[in-house]
Amino acid sequence: MSKFNRFYGMMVIIYDLWSEKMVKKILAGFLILFIVFSCSNNENDFSLVIHGGAGSIYEGRYSAEEEQAFREKLTEALAAGHNILLSGGTSNDCVEAVVRIMEDSPLFNAGKGAVLNAKGNCELDASFMDGSTGKAGAVGAVSIVKNPISLSRKVMEKSKHVFLVGKGAEEFARENKLAIVDNSYFITEENRIELQKMQSEKSSVLNPSGKHEKLFSTVGCVARDKFGNITAGTSTGGMMNKKFGRLGDVPVIGAGTYADNNSCGISATGHGEFFIRNVVAYDISALMRYKGLSLDEAAEFVVNKKLVSQKGAGGIIGIDKDGEIVMKFNTSGMFRGYITQDGLPKVYLYNEK
Amino acid sequence: MSKFNRFYGMMVIIYDLWSEKMVKKILAGFLILFIVFSCSNNENDFSLVIHGGAGSIYEGRYSAEEEQAFREKLTEALAAGHNILLSGGTSNDCVEAVVRIMEDSPLFNAGKGAVLNAKGNCELDASFMDGSTGKAGAVGAVSIVKNPISLSRKVMEKSKHVFLVGKGAEEFARENKLAIVDNSYFITEENRIELQKMQSEKSSVLNPSGKHEKLFSTVGCVARDKFGNITAGTSTGGMMNKKFGRLGDVPVIGAGTYADNNSCGISATGHGEFFIRNVVAYDISALMRYKGLSLDEAAEFVVNKKLVSQKGAGGIIGIDKDGEIVMKFNTSGMFRGYITQDGLPKVYLYNEK
Repeated sequence: MSKFNRFYGMMVIIYDLWSEKMVKKILAGFLILFIVFSCSNNENDFSLVIHGGAGSIYEGRYSAEEEQAFREKLTEALAAGHNILLSGGTSNDCVEAVVRIMEDSPLFNAGKGAVLNAKGNCELDASFMDGSTGKAGAVGAVSIVKNPISLSRKVMEKSKHVFLVGKGAEEFARENKLAIVDNSYFITEENRIELQKMQSEKSSVLNPSGKHEKLFSTVGCVARDKFGNITAGTSTGGMMNKKFGRLGDVPVIGAGTYADNNSCGISATGHGEFFIRNVVAYDISALMRYKGLSLDEAAEFVVNKKLVSQKGAGGIIGIDKDGEIVMKFNTSGMFRGYITQDGLPKVYLYNEK
Repeated sequence: MSKFNRFYGMMVIIYDLWSEKMVKKILAGFLILFIVFSCSNNENDFSLVIHGGAGSIYEGRYSAEEEQAFREKLTEALAAGHNILLSGGTSNDCVEAVVRIMEDSPLFNAGKGAVLNAKGNCELDASFMDGSTGKAGAVGAVSIVKNPISLSRKVMEKSKHVFLVGKGAEEFARENKLAIVDNSYFITEENRIELQKMQSEKSSVLNPSGKHEKLFSTVGCVARDKFGNITAGTSTGGMMNKKFGRLGDVPVIGAGTYADNNSCGISATGHGEFFIRNVVAYDISALMRYKGLSLDEAAEFVVNKKLVSQKGAGGIIGIDKDGEIVMKFNTSGMFRGYITQDGLPKVYLYNEK
């Protein structure tokens, strides 16, 4: 809007002065310079948005120290991504680096700090999509790869496949020299106690108690770089006490992750089963391309109409082809934040605007 | 169209006779009867379409005996499904029964006769979606469940999850008393020889030689029952000589399988990586719902424009909410067939209309 206002103001001045022949050429010159500046400025626009999970995140749930820790880690991830984009780095590099920071932190349910399955192990899922090429990579149920987001990017770039699971995905990680860790690396003492508590209480996977109560924690990032390329990536440890080799929406391209330079990039977090059935990430893109909705309108419809009508809890983050950012959720809160060219990170936990 | 013609003819007669007051009431009575008949007839319409894989299926590739065997098995599957729908069975029962027949036949790459992975074992994927509820089930990399399509339906109906893989999916199968077999049950001598040949020739997974050369064999079924409910199901052994726990589009809801009573049901077969990236099955539904295209127009755009522009080989079968059937492929052939209320199965292998 500010660009439009500037342009409108200049047009008014030009109109007023047009009779004075002497200034015609000077004004025309300024006009050309202004247009060139506007265009080049547009090309350089970049933006970055992240989430660290949605759910029953409400004021009072976390201590001041916990709140502070979440805010600091989200800010650190945004700042790191901003540095990459500012220095002309690609959206692919940005998304991988940002998600790795959240995976390496025990605060979120991805990488280190991932929840435990019914057998007491961590099984991790991740996916990555490059909106400039339409290529994608996804991994499911990996247990020894330090950064699943990097593995999913490697699948996209170095394999002829899109979707690898279990031991096969780990074999591919070893062949591609990705960092391998023992499964115990991911396990925090807090999560171990939580699992024991859940199993003794027999609280179900979908209604866990304690720290993970009604919390769909996942981490995700969408970035649009200076070149207009959009990338989306998502990573998770899934659901505490999960069994049966359950995969959620995270490794399902179209459900948890989608990116297309011509519409938008989306990373989702929520009750995965509903996100798979509703093909959530791609549905937002389809509503934009086929129905002409804006990113905000499309995300509002999918998250707050379609999913709400089915009681499908969760949220999404996204960036459209013009760099507009959306963070939409139908839960009480979502760990989230964004940063644009100005370099000022905005971080939110609850339903504050 | 025949209904429209009948209606048009009746309208002409009514118009001609309208001046004769005496027949007015009689004609009005007939008109009401006709409308009631038409409506009830519409409600009873059902249809069924199947595929057994797409690829380099051209005249001369198969012997007369092989051709005959394919035609007979496709016809048998259609007849079995027709019986279920005719007697008032549900689209869910129909799709499961039809896909099981193709899984149990060694002719197709699904269930018995599935291709072998690089280690010489079969790893099977399947998915199932009920368009009346929007519920879905998917399984990946299972190796001991006789009928993966039944397992995917069971996941949809009896589990809180949508997507189970590997050992966990098999544990769920055992708990739900599904038929368990040794992996050797799936392996045919022909496929074993084929794998040895491929591995000695070092032909790649994506460019296999021999029987599986450029053949994306998968089986799938879409049915619309008397109640207007649409179900889609797909099952496959994946790619010969595959490694790394590769999953294709088959277990990815939205890519290989999708169903929604308000638009269509779709089952896909093809080069899975392209079908995942393009969210093929859901994209056809989205083009219908958001852009107002017919099933035929939407399928034509996705299969013969979008996928062709990316060299993504394959095809789809589908049924829309009015029972219209589509079978679309961008390869030289696709094993396919359909049957409607008249009970006459139509079966095709090549590009014959």
